[in-house]
Amino acid sequence: MAKVLTSREENYAQWYNDLVIKADLAENSSVRGCMVIKPHGYAIWEKMQAVLDSMFKETGHSNAYFPLFIPKSFLSKEADHVEGFAKECAVVTHYRLKNRADGKGIEVDETAKLEEELIIRPTSETIIWNTYKNWIQSYRDLPLLINQWANVVRWEMRTRLFLRTTEFLWQEGHTAHETREEAIEETMKILNIYAEFAKSWMAMPVIQGTKTENERFAGAIETYSIEALMQDGKALQSGTSHFLGQNFAKAFDVTFLNKHGKLEHVWATSWGVSTRLMGALIMAHSDDRGLVLPPKLAPIQVVIVPIYKKTEELTQINEKVETIRKKLIAEGISVKYDNRDTHKPGWKFADYELKGVPVRLAVGPRDIENNSVELARRDTLEKKIYPMDGIEQIIKDLLHEIQNNIYRKALDFQTRNTFAADSYDEFKEIVKTSGGFILAHWDGTSETEEKINKETKATIRCIPLNQQSEPGKCMVTGKPSSQRVIFAKAY
Amino acid sequence: MAKVLTSREENYAQWYNDLVIKADLAENSSVRGCMVIKPHGYAIWEKMQAVLDSMFKETGHSNAYFPLFIPKSFLSKEADHVEGFAKECAVVTHYRLKNRADGKGIEVDETAKLEEELIIRPTSETIIWNTYKNWIQSYRDLPLLINQWANVVRWEMRTRLFLRTTEFLWQEGHTAHETREEAIEETMKILNIYAEFAKSWMAMPVIQGTKTENERFAGAIETYSIEALMQDGKALQSGTSHFLGQNFAKAFDVTFLNKHGKLEHVWATSWGVSTRLMGALIMAHSDDRGLVLPPKLAPIQVVIVPIYKKTEELTQINEKVETIRKKLIAEGISVKYDNRDTHKPGWKFADYELKGVPVRLAVGPRDIENNSVELARRDTLEKKIYPMDGIEQIIKDLLHEIQNNIYRKALDFQTRNTFAADSYDEFKEIVKTSGGFILAHWDGTSETEEKINKETKATIRCIPLNQQSEPGKCMVTGKPSSQRVIFAKAY
Repeated sequence: MAKVLTSREENYAQWYNDLVIKADLAENSSVRGCMVIKPHGYAIWEKMQAVLDSMFKETGHSNAYFPLFIPKSFLSKEADHVEGFAKECAVVTHYRLKNRADGKGIEVDETAKLEEELIIRPTSETIIWNTYKNWIQSYRDLPLLINQWANVVRWEMRTRLFLRTTEFLWQEGHTAHETREEAIEETMKILNIYAEFAKSWMAMPVIQGTKTENERFAGAIETYSIEALMQDGKALQSGTSHFLGQNFAKAFDVTFLNKHGKLEHVWATSWGVSTRLMGALIMAHSDDRGLVLPPKLAPIQVVIVPIYKKTEELTQINEKVETIRKKLIAEGISVKYDNRDTHKPGWKFADYELKGVPVRLAVGPRDIENNSVELARRDTLEKKIYPMDGIEQIIKDLLHEIQNNIYRKALDFQTRNTFAADSYDEFKEIVKTSGGFILAHWDGTSETEEKINKETKATIRCIPLNQQSEPGKCMVTGKPSSQRVIFAKAY
Repeated sequence: MAKVLTSREENYAQWYNDLVIKADLAENSSVRGCMVIKPHGYAIWEKMQAVLDSMFKETGHSNAYFPLFIPKSFLSKEADHVEGFAKECAVVTHYRLKNRADGKGIEVDETAKLEEELIIRPTSETIIWNTYKNWIQSYRDLPLLINQWANVVRWEMRTRLFLRTTEFLWQEGHTAHETREEAIEETMKILNIYAEFAKSWMAMPVIQGTKTENERFAGAIETYSIEALMQDGKALQSGTSHFLGQNFAKAFDVTFLNKHGKLEHVWATSWGVSTRLMGALIMAHSDDRGLVLPPKLAPIQVVIVPIYKKTEELTQINEKVETIRKKLIAEGISVKYDNRDTHKPGWKFADYELKGVPVRLAVGPRDIENNSVELARRDTLEKKIYPMDGIEQIIKDLLHEIQNNIYRKALDFQTRNTFAADSYDEFKEIVKTSGGFILAHWDGTSETEEKINKETKATIRCIPLNQQSEPGKCMVTGKPSSQRVIFAKAY
C-alpha cells in the first residue's frame, strides 16, 4: 500500500495535517478558519467530554448554558479583558436578509440594523458575570460552581485544524466564591483535574505552572496552565485555570452580604480546555502510520478483521468472532467487527492503523483450525498468535499495558527533551537544535521575556509549581532569579 | 408559605413563565430573545440529550460538528430554503472592534468588513450538504447517518422561554441515501424514535402525522411531526422529521455512482428536536405547585429532608439517612440529602415541589424511634408512613408507578380533549370553548386552511398517520375529503 502520510521527519507540520485529514478527524470547511469535526474525531472528543464532565460533577460543579451573543458594551466593562479580546471578534450587526432587487440572490436588509452590535462570545466572563449579579445576594448563594460546554469564536488570522481555529468547542467554568483563598483553591483544584486528565486519560505528561504577566488571561490576576511537549520539541498549552480576583465582580457590580452582614465583592475563577486537546492528543503519540490513541479514549478499542477466500470460511469465522465479540463487550471493551466485502484485509489493516485503533485481531481459516487468533497492537506494531480461549483477558490486560506504555513513552520523551541552560548562548543553541523544554533563569521582567522571544522565538511556557527553589542569575541580564522557568517554542 | 406561582386557571401563560423562573429552569438574558438555561433546567436537558443520543447511536448514527457560520450565498442555493430562513437571521458583517477615538468604549472597525457576510446557522442543511459533496462519491459511501448537537439562531420577534427563543439548543440529523425508499424509511424511523422518546421518557402522548404544504420545512418534500397537547388545550409541535428528496443534493450537486455505474443525485433527510421539548415537558405535567417531572428525566429522583430540633437528633437522622441513601444509590436511583441548616423543612418541601422532585422522604425523631419514614409523591401529593426497612424497593416501584401515572394522566387529558367536529360551526365552538385537538374534514387546499386559520386561529397540526380512512366532506367548502385532519390552536 502506498504511504498515506508525509513522515514526521520530512515535514512535521504536513504530517500533522495529513494525519488529521486522512484519519477522518477533521477538515477545513468552506468558512475561513472554521473546521468540520468528522465522526471519528468527534467520537474521541465525546469521550474526552464525558470524562471531564464527570470530573467536574464529582467536584460539585453543575452545567448551565449562557447566550452565544454578548452585547458590545459588556466587553468594555473590564478594561484588560476588552484589550485582550475585542481585537478579533465576529460582530453581528443585522438581523435580516432580503431578496436583491435584481433577483440575483440575497443581501443584508439595511433597515434591520441592530441598535447595539452583538459579539459572538470569544469567552463568556462578561455575559456570565452580568447574570451572576442577579443570582448572588448573600454568602448562602456561594460558592457558585458552574460549567458550560459551548462553541466560541476568535477571529484568528492563521488557523490550523484543532490547534487554532476561528470557531472551536470548549468547556468554560465560571465560579464565584466568598473569599480569595477559596477562589485560589478552586483554581488549583481545576488545574489538578486538567493535569490528572492529561496524564491518566490522554497518557500525556504535563507541567503545571503559572503564566507570566505577558501571557496572562485578559482580566485575570493569575493564570495557571498545563503545558505538554509535542514530538517536534514544541510546547502546547493544553488548559488554563484563572484566578480572576474581584475584577469581574467589580466590573459587573456583583456583591454579597457576608456572614458578618457586610457587603463585599465576590471572588472569581474561570477555566477551560478546548478541542485543542485533540491536537495535543494527536501530536503527543502518533507515528508515521497514523494516529496512536490511548485505549481509554479510543472510540473503538478492538477491531476484528476476517481473512478468507471462500464464503464458507467467512461463515465459520463470523461464528467464532461473534463469541469473541460478546466476551469483549462483557468486559466493557468496545469492539468492531469489520467483515465488509468491499475492502481487502490489507486495506483495512492500514486504515485502522491510520485511525489509531489500539488492538487489531485477524481471524483466518488456519486460526479456525488451530483455535487461534492473530493480535496486533497499534503502539508497538507487534503481532503475535494467541489461543482463542481466554483472549478477552489477554486483550483486557493488553489495553492497560498499551495505555501505560504510551504514557511511559511520552514521559520518557519529555524527560529526554527537557534541558537546563545556564547561559544565553547555550539556551539559543538548544532552541535551534533540539527544541524541547528549557529550564533557565530569568530576571522576572517583561522586557527580558520579550527580548528572548524576539531573538529565539521561544517563550516562557510557565513558572513551574512544585519546583525546588534554586536561586541563580538571569541568563540574559545577570540579575538575580529565585527559580528557573520553562521556556520553549510553542504552538 | 405564600403562593409562588400564578395559578393555571388564573393565567396559564403567566403560570408557565412563573414556573420556569421560580423552578430555576431558565431566565431571560440581557440579550433580546436569548435565554440562560440554569443548572436545574440544564440537568433535565442533559438527561434528554443522553437518552436521545443513545437512541440515535443504536440506530447507526454518528455525531459530528459543522461550522456555526454559513456563507450568505449558500442560503440562496435552495430556493424554498432561502424563502423560509433568510428572513430572520443574525448576520455577521465584521470581524474586529477597535477603541473609539473619543476613548468612550469600543466600536466596529469598518476596515474589517467581511467580503461575504456570514449567517449564524438557523439550521445546517446548506453547510452540511456543501460538505457532503466531498464525502460522497459512490454507493459505498452511503448511507451517511450523521447527527449534530448544536446551538442555532432564528431572529424571532416574540419569544418565550424554551418555546421560542432567538438562540436555542437542538440536535439536527442529516442523512444521505441511495434511494428514495431508504430515505423515507429513515424519516419514519426517526419520527418513531421521537414518538417513543416522548411517550416512554417524557410521559407525553403525541400524535404522529404529516404537515400540510403550508407548514412544511423550507426545502422538504414532506415534513412529519409529533404533536402534543398542553394543559391549556393548545398543541405544541415537539419534533420534526423531513424527507428532503433530492432538493439539497441538486442544489449542492451531490451525486454518487450507483451499483450499476450510473451517476445519481443523493436522497436526503433531516430531523430535529430542541430545547422546546423542555417547554413541552413543563406544560404537559406540571401543576399550580410547580414542576412535575417524569422520574426517568428527573435529575434528582428522591430528596430526603431531616426534621429536627436538637443537634443530637440530626446526628441520629444523618446516620439513618446514610443507610437509606446508599441503598437507593445501589438501586440506580439518584438521591439528594438536604440537611442544610440555612432553611426550614417547610421551605425545603415547597422548593422541591416547585422543582419537581418525584419523591420526598422526611425523617424526624419519631421516625427514628419507630424505624419509619414519611414518603410524599409529587404527582399526587399523597403522603404516607412506611417502615424504613425495604424502603428502597418501595421507592423503586413507586418511581415506575409515578412515571406510568403521569403518562396515563396526560393520555387521559388528550383523549378527553380530542373532539370530532362535523360542521364548521361546531368546530368554531370547540376552538372557542374547550380547545384541544379537533378532528375534522378538510378539502386539502391551502386557501381553506388559511381561511380557517384566519377565522379561528386554529391551524392544521397534522394529517395523522395510522388513521382509518374515513371519507367525508370539507367542513368549510363541502368538497370531498379522504380523511380527517387534526386542528388545534398551537404554540
